[in-house]
Amino acid sequence: MTVTAPEGFSAAGVAAGLKSSGDADVAVVLNHGPDDAAAAVFTTNRFPAAPVLWSRQVLAGERARAVVLNSGGANACTGPEGFQDTHATAEHAAAELGIGAIDVAVASTGLIGVRLPMDKVTAGVTAAVQQLSEDGGLDAARAIMTTDSVPKTTVQGRDGWTVGGMAKGAGMLAPSLATMLVVLTTDAVVRPEVLQRALAQATSVSLERVDSDGCLSTNDTVIVMSSGASGVTPTAEAFTEALTAAATDLAMQLLADAEGSTKDIAITVRNAASVTDALTAGRACARNNLLKTALFGNDPNWGRVLAAIGTTDAAFQADQVDVTINGVTVCRGGAIGDPREGVDLTGRAITIDVDLKAGTEQATIWTNDLSIAYVHENSAYST
Amino acid sequence: MTVTAPEGFSAAGVAAGLKSSGDADVAVVLNHGPDDAAAAVFTTNRFPAAPVLWSRQVLAGERARAVVLNSGGANACTGPEGFQDTHATAEHAAAELGIGAIDVAVASTGLIGVRLPMDKVTAGVTAAVQQLSEDGGLDAARAIMTTDSVPKTTVQGRDGWTVGGMAKGAGMLAPSLATMLVVLTTDAVVRPEVLQRALAQATSVSLERVDSDGCLSTNDTVIVMSSGASGVTPTAEAFTEALTAAATDLAMQLLADAEGSTKDIAITVRNAASVTDALTAGRACARNNLLKTALFGNDPNWGRVLAAIGTTDAAFQADQVDVTINGVTVCRGGAIGDPREGVDLTGRAITIDVDLKAGTEQATIWTNDLSIAYVHENSAYST
Repeated sequence: MTVTAPEGFSAAGVAAGLKSSGDADVAVVLNHGPDDAAAAVFTTNRFPAAPVLWSRQVLAGERARAVVLNSGGANACTGPEGFQDTHATAEHAAAELGIGAIDVAVASTGLIGVRLPMDKVTAGVTAAVQQLSEDGGLDAARAIMTTDSVPKTTVQGRDGWTVGGMAKGAGMLAPSLATMLVVLTTDAVVRPEVLQRALAQATSVSLERVDSDGCLSTNDTVIVMSSGASGVTPTAEAFTEALTAAATDLAMQLLADAEGSTKDIAITVRNAASVTDALTAGRACARNNLLKTALFGNDPNWGRVLAAIGTTDAAFQADQVDVTINGVTVCRGGAIGDPREGVDLTGRAITIDVDLKAGTEQATIWTNDLSIAYVHENSAYST
Repeated sequence: MTVTAPEGFSAAGVAAGLKSSGDADVAVVLNHGPDDAAAAVFTTNRFPAAPVLWSRQVLAGERARAVVLNSGGANACTGPEGFQDTHATAEHAAAELGIGAIDVAVASTGLIGVRLPMDKVTAGVTAAVQQLSEDGGLDAARAIMTTDSVPKTTVQGRDGWTVGGMAKGAGMLAPSLATMLVVLTTDAVVRPEVLQRALAQATSVSLERVDSDGCLSTNDTVIVMSSGASGVTPTAEAFTEALTAAATDLAMQLLADAEGSTKDIAITVRNAASVTDALTAGRACARNNLLKTALFGNDPNWGRVLAAIGTTDAAFQADQVDVTINGVTVCRGGAIGDPREGVDLTGRAITIDVDLKAGTEQATIWTNDLSIAYVHENSAYST
């Protein structure tokens, strides 16, 4: 049921002809209220796509009634004309829904630097609005898929209230398409400021720690809307816990469905001087092509782990660092540990534990391997 | 003639059995003087290999009489025992040459985290010393090859004096092997402080701007030795020019021989507020896997150029940036420019010009594409 699992939401997904495959490519999610609190986090890329620029304006009011999403085109780097296209999309949806354009967020994913065919977009929005349904969550989740092999959805039921969600992208599935688009919904009664804080906290430990290939999209959007339809007001802590569970569930689905990848890699940096240090060291590993290719080849090449964290400014002494891969401590004190032959990398799940011995903080970054299929998909995509 | 082109140098390369292929793997370069000024730059990786730790001590005195190099093993992340191996190598070479161990720099390349077979190393050094010859430069250049397909050498003749050099590695040829090892020689009379400044200047605009895959080795070593045998003392400017020409020649050879790569990509960032900004933006492109895979696929995907520089803190306005690929300005003012269909990417050479319109500085970074062969070579290497 995804985004329509909580009370007070309807959704739809339709095929508007944006994708050459003919698959569904326009989705609408509508909040029927009574509340319309909303919050969002967006890409930090300095070339934000037109829908990101628009939706930031919408969310500045901490309210939203609907989200229109499309696959088949990112509407990024399209200049003032592209912004006008997004604005027109919101206005068209608002007219169909009988609400204001400033209540309608927009999110897009697809090729950068190409205008959207607006006649198809507006016709798709009209059709989606007509099909809005309390059972439409899965259709909406399907309409935002690009090369995702399955729709990503989550439902977190709590005591009298629920968080639902859908996501697409990230992972290694032709990541220029793989913009992370996430819509979360809840029927809990949540004040806007609590919603924003809970979303920042939830994403910081989940979606923001999935670093499949280090490439930051121009379109990343994570939006949460509250209908308040349950009438239940959870504590901020309880709501944050549920929202974090939903975001983490979706993040792990993104990781697992990363097409072109053969491994899900959890890199945990322990005993760091700070969480920032742990994240810095973890991201350096997640973005090191030599390590990622080695893991694709089932090679527990711990030297590449050290070489990666050796490029960071994280606090550590080179002769103190231990590295454990799938339970085998192949590196002790920055030098040779147990035999690498003891490491079994034949499965999909890989855990790399780096012990910096420099403090008490830790963090985990999730990534994928760098495979031949990744190169193939990403070299063949737009041509 | 490579490193033996200048007067006052002899060299040799022998097969010591470190490589399973049986190819040459130990090289010695000897400076016969009368001068013995030397300078070097080393990797900034915080896990420097044992030979880097040792050679830093040697070069701290701004002098060196010989360099011993080996392929077939990096001697990195091998702890105190690995350092003792390097020290023993220098002591053995020094005894064979009748000089002090502190006059002998050592450089190694190969798999990280494996001890060297010292009996083979010392026998190889003995054999190399016996074969030292003024014609041995090419043999030495061959002995430091790993998956390089050709030896890389340079000779820069000037008015009465010469700079010679050899290099291996970098590029995309199984880059954990592809540590950049470079030995430069000259018979010009050059004071140590001029030598160090000239080397820093020469590498900063050449070898340090080749960023094949963003992975910093534990073993990078660039060393220059002056014999003074020509008796000619060039100006610092003239010497720096010749050394820069030699380093640039070698850098371009490293780029062109990058196995697994199909493109040589020159990314020039123009009209930046500072050289640092230009380098930051250029490196962001060079390290963006989505852009590199697109170029492998002959796809002029300029949106990925913007997405890459959009992650940096370089000064620019998003609606001002132009991108020109192989002469076609596919992006103007951060939006759609001339048709991407006009870009011919079928050749090996690709130029990407990014105009930030934020100042007057510029810099070029050289890189390669991300190919299926890159993934294949680097996933299959150590196993």
